[in-house]
Amino acid sequence: MWTFGRIIDRYATDGYGPTVPTLRTIELAGASGELVGLDLNYPFDEGVSIDDVKKTLDAQGLKAVNITPVIYDRGFRSGSFTAPDEATRRRAVDLAHESVEVARRLGARYVKFWPGQDGYDYPFQVDYATLRRRAIEGIRDVARNFPDVTFAIEYKLKEPRNRLFWSTAAASLLAIEQMGVDNVGLVVDFGHSLFAKENPAEALSLAHSMGRLVDVELDDNYREWDDDLTAGALHLVETLEFLHVVNEIGWQEPLKLDLFPYREDPREAVRESVATLRALDEKAARLPLDELRAAQAAHDAMAVQRIIRRSLLG
Amino acid sequence: MWTFGRIIDRYATDGYGPTVPTLRTIELAGASGELVGLDLNYPFDEGVSIDDVKKTLDAQGLKAVNITPVIYDRGFRSGSFTAPDEATRRRAVDLAHESVEVARRLGARYVKFWPGQDGYDYPFQVDYATLRRRAIEGIRDVARNFPDVTFAIEYKLKEPRNRLFWSTAAASLLAIEQMGVDNVGLVVDFGHSLFAKENPAEALSLAHSMGRLVDVELDDNYREWDDDLTAGALHLVETLEFLHVVNEIGWQEPLKLDLFPYREDPREAVRESVATLRALDEKAARLPLDELRAAQAAHDAMAVQRIIRRSLLG
Amino acid sequence: MWTFGRIIDRYATDGYGPTVPTLRTIELAGASGELVGLDLNYPFDEGVSIDDVKKTLDAQGLKAVNITPVIYDRGFRSGSFTAPDEATRRRAVDLAHESVEVARRLGARYVKFWPGQDGYDYPFQVDYATLRRRAIEGIRDVARNFPDVTFAIEYKLKEPRNRLFWSTAAASLLAIEQMGVDNVGLVVDFGHSLFAKENPAEALSLAHSMGRLVDVELDDNYREWDDDLTAGALHLVETLEFLHVVNEIGWQEPLKLDLFPYREDPREAVRESVATLRALDEKAARLPLDELRAAQAAHDAMAVQRIIRRSLLG
Amino acid sequence: MWTFGRIIDRYATDGYGPTVPTLRTIELAGASGELVGLDLNYPFDEGVSIDDVKKTLDAQGLKAVNITPVIYDRGFRSGSFTAPDEATRRRAVDLAHESVEVARRLGARYVKFWPGQDGYDYPFQVDYATLRRRAIEGIRDVARNFPDVTFAIEYKLKEPRNRLFWSTAAASLLAIEQMGVDNVGLVVDFGHSLFAKENPAEALSLAHSMGRLVDVELDDNYREWDDDLTAGALHLVETLEFLHVVNEIGWQEPLKLDLFPYREDPREAVRESVATLRALDEKAARLPLDELRAAQAAHDAMAVQRIIRRSLLG
Repeated sequence: MWTFGRIIDRYATDGYGPTVPTLRTIELAGASGELVGLDLNYPFDEGVSIDDVKKTLDAQGLKAVNITPVIYDRGFRSGSFTAPDEATRRRAVDLAHESVEVARRLGARYVKFWPGQDGYDYPFQVDYATLRRRAIEGIRDVARNFPDVTFAIEYKLKEPRNRLFWSTAAASLLAIEQMGVDNVGLVVDFGHSLFAKENPAEALSLAHSMGRLVDVELDDNYREWDDDLTAGALHLVETLEFLHVVNEIGWQEPLKLDLFPYREDPREAVRESVATLRALDEKAARLPLDELRAAQAAHDAMAVQRIIRRSLLG
Repeated sequence: MWTFGRIIDRYATDGYGPTVPTLRTIELAGASGELVGLDLNYPFDEGVSIDDVKKTLDAQGLKAVNITPVIYDRGFRSGSFTAPDEATRRRAVDLAHESVEVARRLGARYVKFWPGQDGYDYPFQVDYATLRRRAIEGIRDVARNFPDVTFAIEYKLKEPRNRLFWSTAAASLLAIEQMGVDNVGLVVDFGHSLFAKENPAEALSLAHSMGRLVDVELDDNYREWDDDLTAGALHLVETLEFLHVVNEIGWQEPLKLDLFPYREDPREAVRESVATLRALDEKAARLPLDELRAAQAAHDAMAVQRIIRRSLLG
Repeated sequence: MWTFGRIIDRYATDGYGPTVPTLRTIELAGASGELVGLDLNYPFDEGVSIDDVKKTLDAQGLKAVNITPVIYDRGFRSGSFTAPDEATRRRAVDLAHESVEVARRLGARYVKFWPGQDGYDYPFQVDYATLRRRAIEGIRDVARNFPDVTFAIEYKLKEPRNRLFWSTAAASLLAIEQMGVDNVGLVVDFGHSLFAKENPAEALSLAHSMGRLVDVELDDNYREWDDDLTAGALHLVETLEFLHVVNEIGWQEPLKLDLFPYREDPREAVRESVATLRALDEKAARLPLDELRAAQAAHDAMAVQRIIRRSLLG
Repeated sequence: MWTFGRIIDRYATDGYGPTVPTLRTIELAGASGELVGLDLNYPFDEGVSIDDVKKTLDAQGLKAVNITPVIYDRGFRSGSFTAPDEATRRRAVDLAHESVEVARRLGARYVKFWPGQDGYDYPFQVDYATLRRRAIEGIRDVARNFPDVTFAIEYKLKEPRNRLFWSTAAASLLAIEQMGVDNVGLVVDFGHSLFAKENPAEALSLAHSMGRLVDVELDDNYREWDDDLTAGALHLVETLEFLHVVNEIGWQEPLKLDLFPYREDPREAVRESVATLRALDEKAARLPLDELRAAQAAHDAMAVQRIIRRSLLG
């Protein structure tokens, strides 16, 4: 149901806990008792084979939802598909190709790109036309090589770079349209959308309307940074609206979580998020749709407020 | 219970509706059926006497909570107590003195300063030491003239100036401490606190701990600007926490609303806000305090989340 | 060279000065001695004909750069092309058609839409798919009616609505692509871009690369709100980069200013902005392009910083 | 002249380069050729004595400006002086006491607290009154133990916690006043001030006016996060104003840099920052002070803009 492994990876990297090997991560995720699938970073730890991962997943009753090539670590600190040197760009493509193979072997639904180093930090640092061309062509070439595989891009306004190329839903969809391929779409992360100054529900609706929605992630933040708090910790109304649109568009895939419980037990953070999402989802399912649509048709903010208040606060 | 008049004033100024005279404003506020008191701007319309206002308030069963001298309009566009010219500073003092008299005649609890023009727009525009000295001395002199009258300052990070002197709770409390008077305190506006990057509940706790809390206002916004949305429209958790701290400190005065329903019927905005606050206040009153305090003593974010989730979402 | 009239309009509306009639606005703009053209709002004052405007422009040696139908005032407070009621949407279309005629008569280069009321304020307030459809279809229909006329949309993240549909460069370009017409493009306003969390130079490059750049406006702000400060007041490096990209793409039209000098003499604000832009433009023209491109090709932030420091600070 | 060691520490922690031992850090800092002093974290690497550090500093011709006890790493992830458990609070005090001894032995001017874990992440997580009491009493007790030693607090709005107690200049000065000791002051970091929505020059003026300014650090960011870019990379006008106020208050200590060049050579980042600051400092020294003061006395934004434009752009 969400990325448990990554929580533990960044947790460790930032020094808040010990490093956890890939297979142990999967076991911990399984032990949480709430998960049906995982977002798996590739490459795995040295010495761990695809079969090892497959067996551990099976043992925990988990699936690989998607494979995420690690194109955002130190080796790609100046970019992956947009790196200034061809060797690095080539390495990104190679990792993407390997990830396709891993995804096939593990039965994952898609390969996810999070090009968190593709961008810049200072004004004047890059030529924007070149950056754009490389960002689009790099992923386009991979996608064309595997027309039967689904790829998705997870956009984010910034971090670790101060400016990322795949910054907002609209910016990413525009670039994907320019790619001219059918098998690349978007991962809409509630928190990324929120701090990109979007309304997450609107971003979801947009990606869906273009047939480009591949996955949905949940978390929360203070609207300025990717704090990765537990889902619904702060923005109950916006999370309710997000889940309402998830229903409206008929989205059937399990929702993912994207959390970084620096100081908390990750299992508790997962359970608390799941409990909040379940409570909100029930409320979303019971919204008086006719009344809501009539209020929306009139753009009647106060009527809408009344409906939401009754739904949330009884 | 809140400032109905001001809603209508800015509503009108920004062109979203017709101008409403002072007395009519009071009647409209009374007609909403939810109010017990008003925040009254002074001067009143030309030709309207203090007695006229008193009678209209009485007829509506309303009280004047406080008098707010209008030291933030065009005539004070370069500042009130900090204006570069002495004549303008003198006018601010005169208006303050008159407001004291009006407050006494109407039985208002305090005189409120909202020095919305005291600040600057560009780097280098003012000498900060002079600005600070004038801001503090101007209000100190008024306060010393009327040691038996309560004064309060409503702080705000910006707007209409890009930078206001009375910007945050801490900045204002520090300046009030430097005044060296006992009869000047703070109005903590939930929305102002939110977009000043404070946590409103913490700001409330701070002002109270220093014995400087004079009044409390509610509204909501997107954390970047004083949007003055209906209370609880977005930040249910933070509003619940705010009401919880209101209870914890034993605050007994009626809460005020500070709304600007540009496109909405102000009576509906008031009713919707009141209904939301009542629902949240009931939930605040039923929080399991022992459990909550134990979780807070351990800084246990997940335990706290669980308590709040159960309180809000059932 | 920029919108002088609008400065004075909002100036007046917000109560910082007296109302100025259309024709007097043009005379004031001419008197500033720095202008070659104006962005004219339509309708004009009652009783003022197109011929009156034409004569006054001629007398001042000014041109009408573009006509901007006023689809953002009180009458359109719930939206223009996206208003919930058909009558209002029809009125927006009618005003657009009239503006085309006025633009032709005055020889203006394009008709500008600033759909500042097309959006929403609260979560759940609108159905996003409907909002999107109307926003796109409304302008598409106007554009198809006049295939030989150029139209442009000025995007802005928010204000007066808390959320505007035409929010960012990418969101607007994506919607324009979906329109499927050739004669609609973008006005990139430096300040709007800045507080939409874009890099203005990158937004400019993007709009140009798609053949959709129609006009360019300059101003400045604190990255959170449309403060409309004088150009270069705060962001000298970003303004220099913006002017550099203006040169790189071979943009030949005069640059526009979009200022709101609430407390300042508008003529001084214009002159100060022009002087700053001229100084920066000279520096932009003298950048060591080979060296800069080599640094950009390597994404070398420190080399770029050195070049910019030497250019700006000597 | 600045913290070279810390650059390399976080650099390493975040995986952008290899770990650098304490002594090697000092050698690298010396090799940059621009430094006169360092901000040294304590404890040092295991096996490194105070004498080892002293010798290495002497060999490089560097001084220890201040000692910074590491009260913000994993061991203090729930707080240092405000930690929920007494053992951790005790450890913070012990480290502070040791740091005083190290500072004396190395001749450092002051001991710096950066309580980056003292705060919270979620609403309701802590009792604000308790947090405040502990934050103030913890440092007060240390300061009273060593009345002849200078202590300073470096404030920051957030990171690593979402909310830090020592958040803004005013909040910190207010808490320091409540401590009731003379030997605790403030480090004003330009970047921290900027993204706390302060004006850095005003914060500097405030701290100085209260006799609480202990040190000054420079860097830059995009106003939303502690990006720690090279000084003057973005905010030339505000940096110039900051240096102008540094001169106005007669500040004589060397300025410090606080940079995190994740992808850049730290020596280049230091050199570029120093070159920019030197260029700006020369311009600050040549400002026409009489003219500037007259413009400031009149709050004349356009006159001030003209003076600054001429100073910066010639």
